[in-house]
Amino acid sequence: MIIKPGDLLASIDTPADLRALKPEQLLQVCQELRQYIIDVVSIHGGHFGASLGVVELTTALHYVFQTPYDQLVWDVGHQAYGHKILTGRRDIFHTNRKYGGISGFPKRKESEYDTFGVGHSSTSISAALGMAVASQYKKEEDRHHIAVIGDGAMTGGMAFEALNHGGATNANLLVVLNDNCMSIDPNVGALKEYLTDITTSRTYNKLRDELWNVLGKISKFGPNAQHIASKVESGIKATLSKQSNLFEGLNFRYFGPIDGHDINHLVSVMEDLKRIPGPKILHVLTTKGKGFALAEKDQTKWHAPGLFDKITGEIYKKHYDAPQPPKYQDVFGHTMVELAEKNDKIMGVTPAMPSGCSLNIMMEAMPDRAFDVGIAEQHAVTFSAGLATQGMVPFCNIYSTFMQRGYDQVVHDVCLQNLHVVFCLDRAGFAGADGPTHHGAYDIAYMRCIPNMVVAAPMNEQELRNMMYTASQDGAGPFTIRYPRGEGVMPNWRTPLEQQQVGKGRTIQEGEEVAILTFGHIGNYAVEVCQKLSYDGINPGHYDMRYCKPLDEELLHHIFQKYGKVITVEDGCLQGGFGSAVLEFMVDHGYTSQVKRLGMPDQIFEHGSQLELHRDAGFDPTAIEKTVREMIGVAVKV
Amino acid sequence: MIIKPGDLLASIDTPADLRALKPEQLLQVCQELRQYIIDVVSIHGGHFGASLGVVELTTALHYVFQTPYDQLVWDVGHQAYGHKILTGRRDIFHTNRKYGGISGFPKRKESEYDTFGVGHSSTSISAALGMAVASQYKKEEDRHHIAVIGDGAMTGGMAFEALNHGGATNANLLVVLNDNCMSIDPNVGALKEYLTDITTSRTYNKLRDELWNVLGKISKFGPNAQHIASKVESGIKATLSKQSNLFEGLNFRYFGPIDGHDINHLVSVMEDLKRIPGPKILHVLTTKGKGFALAEKDQTKWHAPGLFDKITGEIYKKHYDAPQPPKYQDVFGHTMVELAEKNDKIMGVTPAMPSGCSLNIMMEAMPDRAFDVGIAEQHAVTFSAGLATQGMVPFCNIYSTFMQRGYDQVVHDVCLQNLHVVFCLDRAGFAGADGPTHHGAYDIAYMRCIPNMVVAAPMNEQELRNMMYTASQDGAGPFTIRYPRGEGVMPNWRTPLEQQQVGKGRTIQEGEEVAILTFGHIGNYAVEVCQKLSYDGINPGHYDMRYCKPLDEELLHHIFQKYGKVITVEDGCLQGGFGSAVLEFMVDHGYTSQVKRLGMPDQIFEHGSQLELHRDAGFDPTAIEKTVREMIGVAVKV
Repeated sequence: MIIKPGDLLASIDTPADLRALKPEQLLQVCQELRQYIIDVVSIHGGHFGASLGVVELTTALHYVFQTPYDQLVWDVGHQAYGHKILTGRRDIFHTNRKYGGISGFPKRKESEYDTFGVGHSSTSISAALGMAVASQYKKEEDRHHIAVIGDGAMTGGMAFEALNHGGATNANLLVVLNDNCMSIDPNVGALKEYLTDITTSRTYNKLRDELWNVLGKISKFGPNAQHIASKVESGIKATLSKQSNLFEGLNFRYFGPIDGHDINHLVSVMEDLKRIPGPKILHVLTTKGKGFALAEKDQTKWHAPGLFDKITGEIYKKHYDAPQPPKYQDVFGHTMVELAEKNDKIMGVTPAMPSGCSLNIMMEAMPDRAFDVGIAEQHAVTFSAGLATQGMVPFCNIYSTFMQRGYDQVVHDVCLQNLHVVFCLDRAGFAGADGPTHHGAYDIAYMRCIPNMVVAAPMNEQELRNMMYTASQDGAGPFTIRYPRGEGVMPNWRTPLEQQQVGKGRTIQEGEEVAILTFGHIGNYAVEVCQKLSYDGINPGHYDMRYCKPLDEELLHHIFQKYGKVITVEDGCLQGGFGSAVLEFMVDHGYTSQVKRLGMPDQIFEHGSQLELHRDAGFDPTAIEKTVREMIGVAVKV
Repeated sequence: MIIKPGDLLASIDTPADLRALKPEQLLQVCQELRQYIIDVVSIHGGHFGASLGVVELTTALHYVFQTPYDQLVWDVGHQAYGHKILTGRRDIFHTNRKYGGISGFPKRKESEYDTFGVGHSSTSISAALGMAVASQYKKEEDRHHIAVIGDGAMTGGMAFEALNHGGATNANLLVVLNDNCMSIDPNVGALKEYLTDITTSRTYNKLRDELWNVLGKISKFGPNAQHIASKVESGIKATLSKQSNLFEGLNFRYFGPIDGHDINHLVSVMEDLKRIPGPKILHVLTTKGKGFALAEKDQTKWHAPGLFDKITGEIYKKHYDAPQPPKYQDVFGHTMVELAEKNDKIMGVTPAMPSGCSLNIMMEAMPDRAFDVGIAEQHAVTFSAGLATQGMVPFCNIYSTFMQRGYDQVVHDVCLQNLHVVFCLDRAGFAGADGPTHHGAYDIAYMRCIPNMVVAAPMNEQELRNMMYTASQDGAGPFTIRYPRGEGVMPNWRTPLEQQQVGKGRTIQEGEEVAILTFGHIGNYAVEVCQKLSYDGINPGHYDMRYCKPLDEELLHHIFQKYGKVITVEDGCLQGGFGSAVLEFMVDHGYTSQVKRLGMPDQIFEHGSQLELHRDAGFDPTAIEKTVREMIGVAVKV
């Protein structure tokens, strides 16, 4: 179905077309842009609320600034759909997040208007500052650099690091603080309360005005009063301008808060700001989901709702006759509560992903034992370490790709001290439609090299539950459990909790000639393959290794003694991953089996469905079957 | 030589002994403690200025709070010598940083007073908050949790993340901001300027007082003035208490600044603070090096001066008859200037380590092209990425162990976008006396798994220069060069710059039967070993692989075709490291040579000299020789 944009929007192929319009036409542009996003996303899916919230802001930025010469960096990028539509991608916008289509995030390869690729949070100020400093060096004095960052992303430490650096420069940098009180879930923390304070009371501006007022009156009351007034005035000037505002404290000139849905006011303020050099911040208030009533009302649900009826607001769900396997996420969430009910040392920690990782289930059930600490992976890890020093058993749930941001803390604060923190790495392996910024590709490699760390991956829901239970036992130490985004394989998943022996794999089937060693959910592909091959009388061994570290050495000795050919399969990078761990064992012990490692080869993979990506990377069932057949010299039947 | 502590200090075996003293005795305790630090460090070495600066603060904290029940977390830990001396380690303090001796940093294994191991910066608030939240959960309402953090460490993003979380709790947390305007080098950034502002003008307190004053006078001038005054007063209350101070903005009650060298005032303020629940911050002004005039004057030099004459202040230097090889650090620093003079795209970036990594040489020579961005590894990486988008070629120098903190940014902002940023990983491999928090153990594993990344290591100064030159060439992409702390091997190191072919190793010597493949400086051990073995007629091949990624496949084919026995040697972890990369190549190509990998086994290594640690890890010359002899079946001659 072809979706037709409104007339004005249809005329905008580049921001130059937008800039040719009269100011009074912008309101209509915004209406059409908002409608186009609703039309396309309701049918083709994608992130929703964030882009609706910045329709006016996006339009104003491209209207006022000379993009792409002026450089616009979107933080995270969920909100950049309007930007994509206005910058030449209107007619391919329906391919958003689909295999081979445009990315759901800004991406340098995709457009010169996408100055910096994003996906992870809080990077925009650093990147824009780098651009601004380069411009300074190149004497491009007329060039503007704009970072658009949400109040949620502002809680990420690197945003503060960038403000600290930027405030000490005279770089031509505008930070637009898009304040909607939300991450994917409601934003948390002191900064959010602070922003609400200045927003609701507007005390900063009010106080300044009122004091000026008072000082005016004082001056009528004789020379002594005047003397005091002048002293106070200088004190106020120094204090209010430098210290009365957190951002001015960091030497950014602060403007706002202003209404982020008033397109004409936005344009006029930005025109003014263009003439103010140096680092500055514009505080803009927006509503996530603006213009779509249900999305305004339940912002978390409508962050990325899936397909829906844009008239009724009904979100389409697949209907099944038989019970379906749950998401690993929900198994995690419910099992947390179950474990914590039995063990009062268990606590839950998430950096701003309660609904994504399903810790919200525990946060509702046990609010004093489960914490959303904001977009703050580094802090989440070390906060967990602090809890662990007091005998607590924190389960710190972080997406595999975001754990990269807490890596030093895992090494330095958890593993070096051998503290009992359990890391649940959600969305490990290919993430799917979110693409390369979100694939959890490297965690096996970067976790297994750290001393004291256990690295486990469940093949199904029961395994996840048992691994969580095992990891919660006294003395378990640093413990990583990685599992993918999406559904498992067990509709009846509420199995009794059983403790595993750490580092023990399990035999799915003994076989002949070739052994398939799998790590994690991907083992289900091998089950499928083995079943299929058995019809041809081919019977590989299949071993669910469960633990990449420590490896099950007993099982590996058995395997290398029995099989001359071994295949390893993992949903992770091949460099230094699970397969490499198996090679290390093999060579250290003098075995010389032939080994084929299947996993992600050394390249960037774009977005697509998980199955499409498994296929492209060469470890879907077809690839596994082909590898078995090649190794044993039996061709696939045509 | 036994160093005698003063009489009072000699009587303090635990903080309980300190607390038994009268307040008027504390001044003498401080004097003796300071003297003892000077006496011991001048003879035995170690960090110096930081601990001198917090003598009074340390004494006050242990005097006022019931350590170890009250929990004290030192950030970074350079400053914790006084703490160690007062908490039972006075008589072993001379073993500080020596092999088998106590650690230069707080360490949980060492003492119950060391509540949290540190070394890296900015972790203390997160850790203390975790402890405080655990205490809350356990209803330990009388328990205090104190994080002592420098103004330098406060620029690290995770400190801000922790404030954002902590300010939204009512945890019993005291943050002591130890403001001495220094990291190892002078602190930089907007926060520092902000702290200087509130310190020098003290406008916050002054303004409040003055306004109260004015309001008092206004009230004499009739009912209208009173009405205004009351309006203004409420505005001021709201604004000043919530927003006039950056920390109060984050919901921490702010106290100070106070003189950190006035022991009695410190004690009295802390006594007051004990009675104030919830998150609070005490801003304390100290002088790094306090009490040792030269150290106060040149604080960077005296951060860790080495051995010195405590009377004259002369810092002892070894004298050599022949010219000595330079430090890799200085080769980096001088080569930066040399490269930048020829290539105007080159820029330098360091997160707060200009003197440590020698970027200060470029910062002095080219201040507009070399940046100290503060303790902010995450920002340093993404700022560099921003520069790279504008065609600059940033060299971002970060210690290997600190690069863990910018890992996500390396993946997400640099490698996914294939941006041309050169990472110079200083102090790669064993760091020596700084110990486990500072060993650069994991970088080969965590860097080589990222697509687009080149991973190189020079065997000597010339190689470092040539790799830097090679990395600066157009189109080089993400490029890592790792090198160790300390001296190279070439007294005449200013060799002409030559471009290398990326991914090409070099043959040091062809040999027989066994090949030694080395990566980096450690290759010099192999040279030594080969020379020694040649006297016995044993001639292994030796190959300096130079690049761990991409590997020199041509050379590796040659090696595996020629030698049935291969030894890999690296100054890094064995899990997923250089040796594993070689195994991956070998097995992928169907070779079955016997391979022994030498490097760091999977355990935590404590502090010691680099040679001691190489020996313990099993890759010093003796271990390499032994491995060669074992593989070829020729025993070591006794």
